[in-house]
Amino acid sequence: MSVKARALYSFQSVNEEEISFLEDEELLVLDENPVDGWLKGENSQGQRGLVPASYVEIIRPRSNSNLTDSSLSPASSPVEDEDPRRRGRANGHALQSSYTNSNARYHPKLHLERHDSVSSSRKGSMVGRNLNRFSSFVRSGVEAFVLGDVPMMAKIAESYTIEMGPWGPQWKESPQPFSCSIEDPTKQTKFKGIKTYISYRVTPSHTAQPVYRRYKHFHWLYNRLLHKFTVISVPHLPEKQATGRFEEDFIEKRKRRLILWMDHMTSHPVLSQYEGFEHFLMCANDKQWKLGKRRAEKEELVGAHFMLTFQIPSEHQDLQDVEERVDSFKAFAKKMDDSVLQLTHVASELVRKHLGGFRREFQRLGNAFQSISQAFTLDPPYCSDALNTAISHTGRTYENIGEMFAEQPKDDLFHMLDTLSLYQGLLDNFPDIIHLQKGAFAKVKESQRMCDEGKMEQEEADGVRKRCRTVGFALHAEMNHFHRRREVNFKEMMQAYLQQQIAFYQRVVQQLERTLHMYDNL
Amino acid sequence: MSVKARALYSFQSVNEEEISFLEDEELLVLDENPVDGWLKGENSQGQRGLVPASYVEIIRPRSNSNLTDSSLSPASSPVEDEDPRRRGRANGHALQSSYTNSNARYHPKLHLERHDSVSSSRKGSMVGRNLNRFSSFVRSGVEAFVLGDVPMMAKIAESYTIEMGPWGPQWKESPQPFSCSIEDPTKQTKFKGIKTYISYRVTPSHTAQPVYRRYKHFHWLYNRLLHKFTVISVPHLPEKQATGRFEEDFIEKRKRRLILWMDHMTSHPVLSQYEGFEHFLMCANDKQWKLGKRRAEKEELVGAHFMLTFQIPSEHQDLQDVEERVDSFKAFAKKMDDSVLQLTHVASELVRKHLGGFRREFQRLGNAFQSISQAFTLDPPYCSDALNTAISHTGRTYENIGEMFAEQPKDDLFHMLDTLSLYQGLLDNFPDIIHLQKGAFAKVKESQRMCDEGKMEQEEADGVRKRCRTVGFALHAEMNHFHRRREVNFKEMMQAYLQQQIAFYQRVVQQLERTLHMYDNL
Repeated sequence: MSVKARALYSFQSVNEEEISFLEDEELLVLDENPVDGWLKGENSQGQRGLVPASYVEIIRPRSNSNLTDSSLSPASSPVEDEDPRRRGRANGHALQSSYTNSNARYHPKLHLERHDSVSSSRKGSMVGRNLNRFSSFVRSGVEAFVLGDVPMMAKIAESYTIEMGPWGPQWKESPQPFSCSIEDPTKQTKFKGIKTYISYRVTPSHTAQPVYRRYKHFHWLYNRLLHKFTVISVPHLPEKQATGRFEEDFIEKRKRRLILWMDHMTSHPVLSQYEGFEHFLMCANDKQWKLGKRRAEKEELVGAHFMLTFQIPSEHQDLQDVEERVDSFKAFAKKMDDSVLQLTHVASELVRKHLGGFRREFQRLGNAFQSISQAFTLDPPYCSDALNTAISHTGRTYENIGEMFAEQPKDDLFHMLDTLSLYQGLLDNFPDIIHLQKGAFAKVKESQRMCDEGKMEQEEADGVRKRCRTVGFALHAEMNHFHRRREVNFKEMMQAYLQQQIAFYQRVVQQLERTLHMYDNL
Repeated sequence: MSVKARALYSFQSVNEEEISFLEDEELLVLDENPVDGWLKGENSQGQRGLVPASYVEIIRPRSNSNLTDSSLSPASSPVEDEDPRRRGRANGHALQSSYTNSNARYHPKLHLERHDSVSSSRKGSMVGRNLNRFSSFVRSGVEAFVLGDVPMMAKIAESYTIEMGPWGPQWKESPQPFSCSIEDPTKQTKFKGIKTYISYRVTPSHTAQPVYRRYKHFHWLYNRLLHKFTVISVPHLPEKQATGRFEEDFIEKRKRRLILWMDHMTSHPVLSQYEGFEHFLMCANDKQWKLGKRRAEKEELVGAHFMLTFQIPSEHQDLQDVEERVDSFKAFAKKMDDSVLQLTHVASELVRKHLGGFRREFQRLGNAFQSISQAFTLDPPYCSDALNTAISHTGRTYENIGEMFAEQPKDDLFHMLDTLSLYQGLLDNFPDIIHLQKGAFAKVKESQRMCDEGKMEQEEADGVRKRCRTVGFALHAEMNHFHRRREVNFKEMMQAYLQQQIAFYQRVVQQLERTLHMYDNL
C-alpha cells in the first residue's frame, strides 16, 4: 500500500538504485516499512527507487498501521565500528547545516563499497542485515546489538541507569556530579623551543587538582568518546585553527569553546562517568598517562558492547509512542538546527558590522564633528573656544563610541556564537542517533512479520523487541538530556546577551551625557 | 615682481587667455595686483595667462607691499543686475561644494559673451572697468558704486547702520526685532480641484496675525532679496521637490527648512527690515498683495543703489587690515564649507544606514530569536513555555529596536541636515561676496596708482577709497553676523542632536531591561 511522504532534506542519488529529491518534495512511498533504513519510493518526476527512510516523513491520513509485504534484501556482514561519526562540517564548516546536507555524509564511500557487500554471505540472525554498512545503524554496532550478535559479557564493569523522570526516561544523575574549569592558556615549548604549543590548566571541582592539557589531548579524548558512545550526542570539539587568524584571538576563542564543551561533558550523567574522561581529568603523571591511554584504547565496552551497560526501567514501552516521540524530536531538531544556523549567520554578520560598518559610521561622524570644530578656529576673532572645545569633544566621543562598537562583540556576540557552535555540534549528531532508533524499530517490525509468517521463532523476535527497548529508552534519555541542557544554556545565553547589551547602551548614554554637559554654560 | 601663490580651488580655463590649475597647485603670480579680478600668472606646467584672483592665495615671504606696474584692461559697460547670484548647486545639488567647484558658476556664459564686451566703449570714470561682466563685482553693481557711477538719490527712504561692536563692524540691531513661525502646511485646491498646492501658516511675532503663503510666494520674495541685496548672504530657499519623494515627507522637510530659512531672515538686521519682506509677512489682502508686489518689483534701491543706504562708522579703516580679515574669513569659509559638506555626507549616509543596514541587522536578529523560540515549541513535552515566551519577546524587542533605528533620524539627523543645508547655502554666497571686496580693493589701488602717476585727480581717487570703505564695513558686518549666527545655530544643532541621541539610547536600554526581566523567574 503506497502512502504519501514529504522529504525532510534534499537527497542526491549516488547510484541507479536510488532516486534524488529536494527538501519538501512530495514523494510516494510504495511500502512504508523501511528495509535496512531504505524505502521504495517515487519522486515527483515519477522516478522510482530507494529513498533513505530518515530523510522522509510519512504524511499520515490518520489510521493505517497494518504491516504490509516487504522484500528482504541480502544481508551483509557486520562492519567493524572503525570511525568517528563526525563528517563534513565538523571542522571549519560551522555555518553549514547537517540537516540540510546530511546526504553528503554517507555516500562518498558507499558508492564504492556497496556492491561487494551485496554479495557477502548471510550469517547469524534470520533478520536481514543492513545493506548500507556506512549507515550509523550498522557502524555504531546498534544493528548487531539489536539482532543479538553481541554476546553478554562475563562481567560488565560499567553500568548506566535510565530512570523514569517527569518527562519520561532520563539518565540517572551521576553519584558524584562535578564541574571542571579550563583556564590560563599558556604557550609552552618543547625540544629546546623548536615546537610550541598551548597548555590549558584543567581543574575538576571534585579533586581541585589541576592537570595541564593540550588540544591534542582533548582530541584524543574526543576520539575515544566517539568510539565508545552510541546513542549519545558527543559534543564537537572547537574547530582547529583556521589560517590567517590572530593567534591571541584564536586561543581565547578556543578556550571559551573548550569551557562550553567541558560544561556539556560534566553535565552529562553518562559521558561524565566515562573512565577515559576521568583519566583525562586526573592523571598528572606522564607514565600513568600513557598506561591509562592504552587501557582506554583497548576497552571492550565500546560501540555495540556499550549498549550492554544500560539498566533500563521496567515500564511498558509502546513502540508506536517511541516512534512518535522520535519523529517529534526529529522535526524539532531540524528546526532548531535551522534556527541556530540562522542566528549564527545573523550574529556573525553583526560582529562583522560592529567591527566594520558601525565603527566606521560613528568614527566618520566623529571626524566630521572634529572637522567642523577645526574650521571654527580658522577666523581667530570669532573662534568661540568653548563651543569649539565642546564640538571637538563630541567628535572624540563619537570616535570613541565607534571603538566601543568594535569592542562590544567580545562582551556579547562572541559568547552567543560559542553557545550556538556547541549546539550546532550537538544537533549535528542527532540525525545519526535517530537513525539508530529507526533501524532498530524496523528490525522489530521485520522480525515480528517473519514470526507471523512462521519464518522465525517467537523467542528470537522477543529478543529483538527487548533489545530495541534499550535503544528506545537510551534515545529517549538522551533527547531528554538535550532538552534540559538547552533550556539552561539558552536561558543563560539570552540573559548574558541582554545584560551586556544593556550595559553597552548605558555606557553610550553616559558618554553622550558627559559630552552634552560641555554645552551647558556656553 | 612675481610672487608665489597657492590655488584655493581648481580652475578650468575656458579660453586661451586663461590658464587651468588644480586645487592646492602652486602658481607663480607675475603681478600680485589684480586687474578686474584677474591676475597674470603661470601654472606649474609653465603655462602663462589669466588667473581669477579670488581663486588663489598669495604666499607671502613677509614684507612686500609696494605697488608695481600693471596694465589696464579695456573697460566694459556696466551690466544690468539682472539675475540671482545662485547657480549650479542651489537646487538639488546639495552635496556639491561651491568652494571646490566655484569656477563652474561663472564660465558657461562668460565664454560666449566676453569678446563683445572687450570691444565695448569706455565711459565714466578713468579707472578701468571689469573685463568680466559676469563677475559678482560687476553684476552686483558694486563696481559701479565704487567707481562713483551711482548718483546719490534725492531721498533715501531706507537706511541701515553699521556700528562698531566688540568684534569690529556689525549691523545695528533692528529697532523692532521679531521672529516668525511657519506651521501647518495644508493642501489647498484651486480651479475646482484641478490644481493643488500647499499653504503654510506664517505668523510674525510682532503682529501675531497669521498670513498664508505658498512656496511660490517664498520664491518671489527670495528673488526680490537677490535682486536688492549685495554684500549680504541671502539664505537659499529649500530645494524644489525632487522626483520620487514621498509627498508627506517632502512637505515636512520643506516646512522644517523654511523655518530655519525664516529664522535667518528675522535674525538679520538688514534682511528683516526689508519692505518687501514686511509685505510678505503682513499682507493678508489679495489686492494689496498684488500692489505691494508691484511696488517691490519697481523699487530703486536695489543692487548698486542699495549700497547708498549704509550709514558707516567714522572709525579709521586700514585697507590692509580689511584685506587680511577677508583672507582669514575666506580660508575659514572654505574649510567650513568643506566640513559642512563632509558632515552632510556622513549624516546622509547615517540616515541611509538607519533606514537600511541598522534596521535590517536588528530585525534579522529579532527574526532569528523568534525562530529559535518557534523551534523550542516543536517538541511539546519539553516546550518550556516561559523561556520560549521570553525568547520570543526578545525577538520582538529587537525587531522593535530595528524600527526605532529607522524612525530615529526624524528626531535627530534630519534636524542636523536641515541646519547644514542652510549653512551650505549661506557659505555658497561668500565667494561672490568676498569677490566684491577684492574688486573694490583693486579699484582703490588702481586709482591711487593712477593718481600717483598724475593720470587722475586725488579727489576722484579719494572718492573711490571712501566708497570702498562702505564695501569693507558692510562685508565685515556681514561676516560678523554670519559668525554670530553660526555659533547660535551650531550650538543648538549639537545640543539637540546629543539630547535626542541620549533619549534614543535610553529608550533602547528601557526596552532591553524590560525584556531581560522576563528571564528572571524561569
